[in-house]
Amino acid sequence: MRSESCESSQWCLTETALDPRKKGGNESLFSVANGHLGIRGALDEDGYIHTPGTYINGFYELYPYQYGEAAYGFPEYGQAMLNVPDGREIILKADGEQFNPAESVLLSHKRVLNFKEGTLRRIFTWRTADGITLTVESLRMVSFVRPHLAAVQYRVHADKPVKVELISTLKGAVSNKVQGKDPRTGTKLPKHALVMQEVTTCDASSALMHHCTKLSQKDLYTGIMHDQEGLNLLGCSYTQEKELRTSFEAQLEGGSACVLRKYLSYWDGTAGDELFHKCMEELYQAKQTGMDALLLEQYGYLEEFWKYGDIRIEGDEDIQRSVRFNLFHLLQAVGKDGLTSAGTKGLTGEGYEGHYFWDTEIYIFPYFLYTAPRIARQLLRWRVNMLPKAKRWAQILSLKGALYPWRTINGEEASAYFPAGTAQYHINADIAYAVEKYLRLQDDQEFLPGAAEMLVETCRLWMSLGHWNARKEGAFCIPTVTGPDEYTALADNNAYTNLMASHNLACCVQLLAYLRKQHPEYYKNLQDTLGCTETEISSWEQASRQIYVPCHHGFGLICQDDAFLDKPVWDFIGRPNRPLLLHYHPLEIYRYQVLKQPDVVLAHYLLPHRYSQAQKRRDYLYYDPLTTGDSSLSHCVQGIMALEIGDTSKGWNDFIHTLNIDLKDLHHNVKDGVHTAAMGGVWHYLVHGFAGMRDDGDLLSFRPRVPQALGQLTFHLCIRGNALKVSLNARGACYTLETGDGLAFFHEHTQVMLRPGEVREFSLVPKLEAVIFDLDGVITDSAEYHYQAWKRLCDELDIPFDREFNHNLRGVGRMESLELIISRTGKEFPLSSKEQYAEKKNRYYQEMIQQITPEDLLPGIRELLDALKSRGIKTALASASRNSTAIIELLRISDQFDVITDPSARVKGKPDPEQFLQAAELLCLPPRNCAGVEDAQAGIDAILAAGMFVVGIGDYLTGAHWLCSDTAQLSWEELERQFYRGV
Amino acid sequence: MRSESCESSQWCLTETALDPRKKGGNESLFSVANGHLGIRGALDEDGYIHTPGTYINGFYELYPYQYGEAAYGFPEYGQAMLNVPDGREIILKADGEQFNPAESVLLSHKRVLNFKEGTLRRIFTWRTADGITLTVESLRMVSFVRPHLAAVQYRVHADKPVKVELISTLKGAVSNKVQGKDPRTGTKLPKHALVMQEVTTCDASSALMHHCTKLSQKDLYTGIMHDQEGLNLLGCSYTQEKELRTSFEAQLEGGSACVLRKYLSYWDGTAGDELFHKCMEELYQAKQTGMDALLLEQYGYLEEFWKYGDIRIEGDEDIQRSVRFNLFHLLQAVGKDGLTSAGTKGLTGEGYEGHYFWDTEIYIFPYFLYTAPRIARQLLRWRVNMLPKAKRWAQILSLKGALYPWRTINGEEASAYFPAGTAQYHINADIAYAVEKYLRLQDDQEFLPGAAEMLVETCRLWMSLGHWNARKEGAFCIPTVTGPDEYTALADNNAYTNLMASHNLACCVQLLAYLRKQHPEYYKNLQDTLGCTETEISSWEQASRQIYVPCHHGFGLICQDDAFLDKPVWDFIGRPNRPLLLHYHPLEIYRYQVLKQPDVVLAHYLLPHRYSQAQKRRDYLYYDPLTTGDSSLSHCVQGIMALEIGDTSKGWNDFIHTLNIDLKDLHHNVKDGVHTAAMGGVWHYLVHGFAGMRDDGDLLSFRPRVPQALGQLTFHLCIRGNALKVSLNARGACYTLETGDGLAFFHEHTQVMLRPGEVREFSLVPKLEAVIFDLDGVITDSAEYHYQAWKRLCDELDIPFDREFNHNLRGVGRMESLELIISRTGKEFPLSSKEQYAEKKNRYYQEMIQQITPEDLLPGIRELLDALKSRGIKTALASASRNSTAIIELLRISDQFDVITDPSARVKGKPDPEQFLQAAELLCLPPRNCAGVEDAQAGIDAILAAGMFVVGIGDYLTGAHWLCSDTAQLSWEELERQFYRGV
Repeated sequence: MRSESCESSQWCLTETALDPRKKGGNESLFSVANGHLGIRGALDEDGYIHTPGTYINGFYELYPYQYGEAAYGFPEYGQAMLNVPDGREIILKADGEQFNPAESVLLSHKRVLNFKEGTLRRIFTWRTADGITLTVESLRMVSFVRPHLAAVQYRVHADKPVKVELISTLKGAVSNKVQGKDPRTGTKLPKHALVMQEVTTCDASSALMHHCTKLSQKDLYTGIMHDQEGLNLLGCSYTQEKELRTSFEAQLEGGSACVLRKYLSYWDGTAGDELFHKCMEELYQAKQTGMDALLLEQYGYLEEFWKYGDIRIEGDEDIQRSVRFNLFHLLQAVGKDGLTSAGTKGLTGEGYEGHYFWDTEIYIFPYFLYTAPRIARQLLRWRVNMLPKAKRWAQILSLKGALYPWRTINGEEASAYFPAGTAQYHINADIAYAVEKYLRLQDDQEFLPGAAEMLVETCRLWMSLGHWNARKEGAFCIPTVTGPDEYTALADNNAYTNLMASHNLACCVQLLAYLRKQHPEYYKNLQDTLGCTETEISSWEQASRQIYVPCHHGFGLICQDDAFLDKPVWDFIGRPNRPLLLHYHPLEIYRYQVLKQPDVVLAHYLLPHRYSQAQKRRDYLYYDPLTTGDSSLSHCVQGIMALEIGDTSKGWNDFIHTLNIDLKDLHHNVKDGVHTAAMGGVWHYLVHGFAGMRDDGDLLSFRPRVPQALGQLTFHLCIRGNALKVSLNARGACYTLETGDGLAFFHEHTQVMLRPGEVREFSLVPKLEAVIFDLDGVITDSAEYHYQAWKRLCDELDIPFDREFNHNLRGVGRMESLELIISRTGKEFPLSSKEQYAEKKNRYYQEMIQQITPEDLLPGIRELLDALKSRGIKTALASASRNSTAIIELLRISDQFDVITDPSARVKGKPDPEQFLQAAELLCLPPRNCAGVEDAQAGIDAILAAGMFVVGIGDYLTGAHWLCSDTAQLSWEELERQFYRGV
Repeated sequence: MRSESCESSQWCLTETALDPRKKGGNESLFSVANGHLGIRGALDEDGYIHTPGTYINGFYELYPYQYGEAAYGFPEYGQAMLNVPDGREIILKADGEQFNPAESVLLSHKRVLNFKEGTLRRIFTWRTADGITLTVESLRMVSFVRPHLAAVQYRVHADKPVKVELISTLKGAVSNKVQGKDPRTGTKLPKHALVMQEVTTCDASSALMHHCTKLSQKDLYTGIMHDQEGLNLLGCSYTQEKELRTSFEAQLEGGSACVLRKYLSYWDGTAGDELFHKCMEELYQAKQTGMDALLLEQYGYLEEFWKYGDIRIEGDEDIQRSVRFNLFHLLQAVGKDGLTSAGTKGLTGEGYEGHYFWDTEIYIFPYFLYTAPRIARQLLRWRVNMLPKAKRWAQILSLKGALYPWRTINGEEASAYFPAGTAQYHINADIAYAVEKYLRLQDDQEFLPGAAEMLVETCRLWMSLGHWNARKEGAFCIPTVTGPDEYTALADNNAYTNLMASHNLACCVQLLAYLRKQHPEYYKNLQDTLGCTETEISSWEQASRQIYVPCHHGFGLICQDDAFLDKPVWDFIGRPNRPLLLHYHPLEIYRYQVLKQPDVVLAHYLLPHRYSQAQKRRDYLYYDPLTTGDSSLSHCVQGIMALEIGDTSKGWNDFIHTLNIDLKDLHHNVKDGVHTAAMGGVWHYLVHGFAGMRDDGDLLSFRPRVPQALGQLTFHLCIRGNALKVSLNARGACYTLETGDGLAFFHEHTQVMLRPGEVREFSLVPKLEAVIFDLDGVITDSAEYHYQAWKRLCDELDIPFDREFNHNLRGVGRMESLELIISRTGKEFPLSSKEQYAEKKNRYYQEMIQQITPEDLLPGIRELLDALKSRGIKTALASASRNSTAIIELLRISDQFDVITDPSARVKGKPDPEQFLQAAELLCLPPRNCAGVEDAQAGIDAILAAGMFVVGIGDYLTGAHWLCSDTAQLSWEELERQFYRGV
């Protein structure tokens, strides 16, 4: 019943026909798991199976790595999460005919993964060769409440009398998938790495298998127990193929049914005997509890989880279902015992051998941090537990502190290709990033000791990796690293790594400062234990502050690394094969500007307040087209940043892509398991992308930008015991503090303080609150003086210059103008002369503008400024000119502007929107509530890019929302009318 | 008899006692080989064996490479030169007691590798348990005349009646050494990769084994045939251990002897039947020829070879022997059939799996180029034959043209670690470098087609690897390569690679221009075949010219690559373990300034005329201390460059090291085979180092610098049919053209043209031919004006300045002086202000010096200049000042100087010797024949570093050869007396 009701809502993933092309992929999608134990969604009966798999998080075997040419410190062993005994199967026979999903006559088929119930249900109708119709309902679950337990229920109904035979198997001989050409999937483990030790039959319907591994020296007990209705137990046998077969039989009347239930229990560890008893105990208790009660437990767990874990989308049913599918799989993937983490494929497949990467901390952890902090805590505890191994690994690599492995199950490095493995030191800063967020947002005093040690030891790592570089003015540099973008390796000063390392260092210094002040005893103790001196701590502070971030001043870009912009750009058209790593040698890929993941853009995303909006925009626009999309981790970041800079169309497309990476198998490998990082990306997208939530400041902040197509977006955030409900659509935002003791945050520029039960609503509809003016040609015609000054300079230098060419200089900065003028001559000038010329031109200009008086205000401007003032509309001046202050003083309108932007603080001139974005920030207004007035095309483009309402003065301008031929037409009334016309 | 006479001379390596610590190493040193077939020097009898080995050059098996994480384009197979059937052994029994070298009573032992005879001889005396004394003389040779043939002779003499039994074995079950921790040695080939197919017994004393390989699909026939004196053949058996045992017996009288000879023939290939017959035929012919005649042949071959191949050292017998040992092993190592090259270990061991590297072209080839051009040609032919595979490899890596593998046997890439393998693209330029030298020095028209194709295809490779980089002013840049220094990987613009690529491109353009002009038909044909257009060729010319070479202007250094000088320097004291690669992870090594091989220094060595002597000196002084000496390839280059910059002591020490790398096992791994590249380095050292021969110009040139310790150094060079004998010692050089049609070359600055039979001698004893003057404080006291000008500037800027501090500025350039002055203030000044200040100071100075008149010449200077002129002694002015010309005009002595150095052409001021070296070059004189006069310590140091006679003016100066307190003492007579005092 429950299953039916949910299906009509958006709580289920449903399949209504078997499609052989999707066989492997659907086994991944329909997996059931609880973070400890997982079973792929292979059908109950054999015959239509791609890769059956049952996995235990963190249960692995080692195998020796081979290297063509080994070197000191290369990891000696690979690690692979093992495929464990398969108890999924039930063989169904009717009057001796065996059902085969691929060959038998299927009258109907439905498979449903239910996110609310936590089950995989299946119902199908089989017409036997004898014309008997059997309806089978199966149910499979892995209990969230009992981490070691899985259960299967198989109900057979017949329309005519028939002898039904059911054989339940437990397959003890299992192996992992063997690696082929694609290094991302399969393993080099030998076959049957999980070695059968013993089979113990307890009674005819329950038994226990004992397996062990050779190198990792682990034990596994797998128990099975049955329970039946209307069936006779025939007996149990153990075959040569190491399969336990328990047979049942029923002589069904027409219209009657029988039911078989099997309980499976998996206990891994190292202490043999105890595991045996735990395993049996689990089975007895499960059988006693019974299937219905187990289902109720499961439902209860999920009800509790979804309370804050759910995200409601009231605009598109498909999207709603897809979002929940992604979130549900995240819950299924994460380890919750503090001894395991989340594999990149969760427990749904063998891709990447079940390893944990940085995906956990950066992509998956935040969802739990805000919706189920106790799970987030366990993910971090796992890293604390692995700290001794990380310290040992640092030592082996002649480094100080702790070096977390790039990929691992047991805490030791399992990356056999260090340029895209161990060299990704950034994972240490990524872990520290998660730790800092957890401490700040959940205020968990008990976690402090572990957190402090992790932060201290990662700081030490950075200090031994980096150095103060005299050639970069003493900045702290980190050579020879690989950033998240694996299509560039062993680079110097990777911007992402340096920025995150700086953050890592700063967080640790802050935490220690806090402890010193708030918990001096504890701080003293910590200093003794970890042996860190004030000198050491102050060196961290210094390194954090003096971190080197490579920049290209001409382009106004942050460089991905020292050398990146020096390389040629990849030929995206001539070389279309994807992913690159399967078609080009690393040497070829490394030689070009081409990205697997957008390093710099990701840094901006994670550290949103470090750089200006304009900087983020420029970097995004440069790096986004260089990004191949080969990584499932990149779309969400690219799309969220597209939203941030106002590219809503790209933002939407990347969202749909992220949402469907697994559901539509966009990376053609969902058969190897789902992409848990991208699933985390769905949450990021909704909360950080559409709701524009940022959490790097003292308070959370929201800059919502929910597209119409999404309808209403509602989610919860749990912060220090508060539960904040956020509900948004394109036209408004509503914040409700459901529980807690009060929470402060920002909605756009407004600080909000909510008491428990309090609700606050905000409109997101554009409202004209400010006008931002250009100076030259808008306020006054200083453009003429510029022309005269350039003309005088050019005449002196014997360079042709006329009014026509002067048009090109409108809105363009001084040095850039000079470059344009010079470029016509074809001559080269040394920088020092150019600086002299620019200065000279400015001197001429400054002389000329002394003639300016209030009479020089252009027509209509004084009236407009007065009208704005009287209506409380703010005004700002955004001019490219360094002489603005002088001019507006001569015009006697200095007191008319609330804000004048500082040209010296700007990196790029128009058409970059930097000045306008700066003006809006200084006005504390969202750009949508600002209008900009410009007379030059570069200025119009800048205002547009800033996301403001654009007023153009003059003819031949394109892109303006309202175009006036001169300033006399600029009345307040018309401006207001034009602004609200499109709202 | 011959063996005795040679031993007293320096033609033999002799061992007189068995030293178990040297067991493995001596097996390598005492190897006999002919470039095709080689046998390690293991003793004839078992019992004292380390690693017996018999190898055929280029005979290899493949084995699949395993990668922890593979990627596109990683080589799939390893290659290993196979250990082939071992026919070395003879078992000796006397009255049933078996001789065991390790355990039996050895009364004497001597083992002699004879370079003139081409044999390994051994004589030992064994006292049996019964008190019988047996004297055994064994002889082993691998024929240079018959590449497939080896022969062993074993003569047993007894002092008393005894029954002697000899068993000759041929061991068919052989394997290679298995790889352990050190990746440089051993293989991952499975055991018995060489599979026994069949044994054919022809008669009781001759038989044939047929082996084959599975993956490389090669066949090998190994034949054995015996011949005896005073022995009875008992029979032949084939054991379970796949061993052929042929037994002989003799009942010796006291004082009599018996002799056993075994002939071994190895024929590899793919056509089974023919090989069988070739193999048998070889044996029959050898037996018919007989051992004495084979020895005569061998002697004849070597006599011919040594005629030009020998280098005589008449000053130290040990050195003489060691030099010949190294040269002899080179001859033993190189393939001479055009189908094989020279493995890094020759045929003496299994290190590096018998692979060929760039060692051949850069280190080994030059010896043969100048002494046995027909062998040099075969080495290059091998590369021509491998061109199709190199083109295919380029294609796989998405590159154009040809990409030669970093390490290989069969022409395919066998490097399984691309950062220190395939990324070493420089090997292509290294090959081109050898090709160009061969063409220029041997003028072999027949080789032109192959050479042209190789050059064209390597040019194409560079064009697809590099790009014109707008960020480096449009220079041609090559990103992501590894240079010869493997302690830095995947760097951008590795200076060595870029310079060698530029050379590669230029050589090809020149060759094509030559062909277009001299052989238009052929050129046309070539263009058609290779499809190269004029546009393409002109792009090569442009890329060659516009190649980017990273420089550090402040240090006046060429940077090893874009990022190298940005890294911190390795802690050489705190981290003393060597070689680094066995103790530190590559990531750790790559992060520092630390070198395995001196990249930039090697480029200077190979392209000696590309940069000034001063530049080479600076680079050498910077990079040499950063070089670990972990590579056997680096000492010779470092030492030769030490000689070039005048560091004779380091030059000598590195020579002794290079000479003894194998003889004294300085790298602790001679057991794995000799270091052929370092052996080539011995020749380089003598010819390029001590004789200072350079061959990159149109004509050869010599700048001899033979140390006293070496005595007389004599060698031959064969150039285009001319044989030039060069005979040198510390005091003179003698050149004789023994045969040919005339040869032009340079001795120092003198062009020499020798007719056949002609002899020219030159003295190398210093002779005063020029005096080089500093200006300020030597010619005139403009130093006072400098002081006044600085003082005025400093007063204006309110910076303290006095006469005392002014002393520090003597001989120091203007900007450097300003920096010194500023550095005292602790303030920072922008570059533009500093340039302004420097200009201002110069303006003041220029105003002041207008007061100068001829009266201002310092005392004694006019007289000295007149005296020098009258005696034909040249004069030069080497001043740091840009105002020199103005001053000497005001002094009216402009016409007194033959040469005035150009301060704008200099990179570094004094104490760098650049100006003085420049003056000597412009005077066309060797520095030893120049005296320099200076009044400042920086100047004194510069003259000293230039290798000139130093005259100091003033007190408190150190390092001058002659110190005057003022210029009045500078008389010609005293100068002459002082100069010759030390000669």
